[in-house]
Amino acid sequence: MSTEQGIESVAAAIKWNEAGLVPAIVQDANSKEVLMMAYMNEESLGRSIATGETWFWSRSRGELWHKGATSGHTQRIVSMHYDCDGDTLLLRVEQIGPACHTGSYSCFTNEVTGIQGVDANATTLTSDRFAMLNQLEAVIAQRYTERPEGAYTTYLFEKGVDKILKKVGEESAEVIIAAKNKDNDELRCETSDLIFHLMVLLRERGLSLDEVMEELGRRHNKSKQPK
Amino acid sequence: MSTEQGIESVAAAIKWNEAGLVPAIVQDANSKEVLMMAYMNEESLGRSIATGETWFWSRSRGELWHKGATSGHTQRIVSMHYDCDGDTLLLRVEQIGPACHTGSYSCFTNEVTGIQGVDANATTLTSDRFAMLNQLEAVIAQRYTERPEGAYTTYLFEKGVDKILKKVGEESAEVIIAAKNKDNDELRCETSDLIFHLMVLLRERGLSLDEVMEELGRRHNKSKQPK
Repeated sequence: MSTEQGIESVAAAIKWNEAGLVPAIVQDANSKEVLMMAYMNEESLGRSIATGETWFWSRSRGELWHKGATSGHTQRIVSMHYDCDGDTLLLRVEQIGPACHTGSYSCFTNEVTGIQGVDANATTLTSDRFAMLNQLEAVIAQRYTERPEGAYTTYLFEKGVDKILKKVGEESAEVIIAAKNKDNDELRCETSDLIFHLMVLLRERGLSLDEVMEELGRRHNKSKQPK
Repeated sequence: MSTEQGIESVAAAIKWNEAGLVPAIVQDANSKEVLMMAYMNEESLGRSIATGETWFWSRSRGELWHKGATSGHTQRIVSMHYDCDGDTLLLRVEQIGPACHTGSYSCFTNEVTGIQGVDANATTLTSDRFAMLNQLEAVIAQRYTERPEGAYTTYLFEKGVDKILKKVGEESAEVIIAAKNKDNDELRCETSDLIFHLMVLLRERGLSLDEVMEELGRRHNKSKQPK
């Protein structure tokens, strides 16, 4: 399908509002945080599709707006979907710099408090939900190389692969027990422990987390194919 | 702060449109997928805050709408934010059943193709090494809700937690055997399988991957403190 046809057929599928606009939700394709919402008219939708970067219609300035044109904080489109009734767009993007004009990562920084049953301090916006895996992997690699005294990970490497495998077995048994006890606090702790010891094992065996992620990708794509 | 004050101060902070409405983005608090967008008026915002479940204003029916009142597919609010210019709400929810009236997990099922630089079939992001965990989590959440026939993940959910736990035990044993055999191809495959079944278990138990990541962070930070 040519880009030209894409624009026309998408524009026809969209239910434009009275002002000829459609709201577009912008989500970070990496962290999956919702970054902002803005409006597109048919021209900005066309330019977004044609350039692969986001263009909106600025309702306040009454003009076409190439996001990041002045700030440099552009958004490369990774995917675009519209919803069941065609009146909202969802764009997943690679965001360069902060999405918000205030300099914030996301525009949604104002938390509403006092909601029935909600603990207001419970939520934070992070730029990368799996950042901890990166950090942990770096610490494990450092422990493997430097063997700092007193560190638990050093102890595991010194004891060797049998000790690490005993911990993998132990933690997976504890995951099973926690799940059977319907105890999500325990399950959270034991799953963390299991993941940590798996990462230590991968380091010990010289297998990268990237290779495991690639393997997960191969399985995932295979499972989507008809059998 | 009392709930009553909360409603008044929030209503004052919101920039209501000409129709007295504000768009509300609804995001799955577990998988972080965007599920739907709907509109709130002041009354539905008040009811959402007071009850901890989502209430909207149906523009097509012209009436207050308690999401899931007839279908049972309610949304328990986990957090609510408004954006920098106060004209959009973002709600993170625990979604019961499918969010979409079509029975889909999310309303955003129509993919736009032909975007410059975007390969419609390439769902992976090279800049995020853990993108596969996001994708896998979304697929597992979709399988959990929709239970498509013939899918392995549907089979696991249908069989229940004991089956999933048997697989966790089996895969961890296979990880141990692969490591003892010094076979990194096997280890890569078995570690992938273990991670996949752990993620299925988390979904079955209603525990988010974010909570596990937070737990890993707590452990990591604790281990850095001097003893």
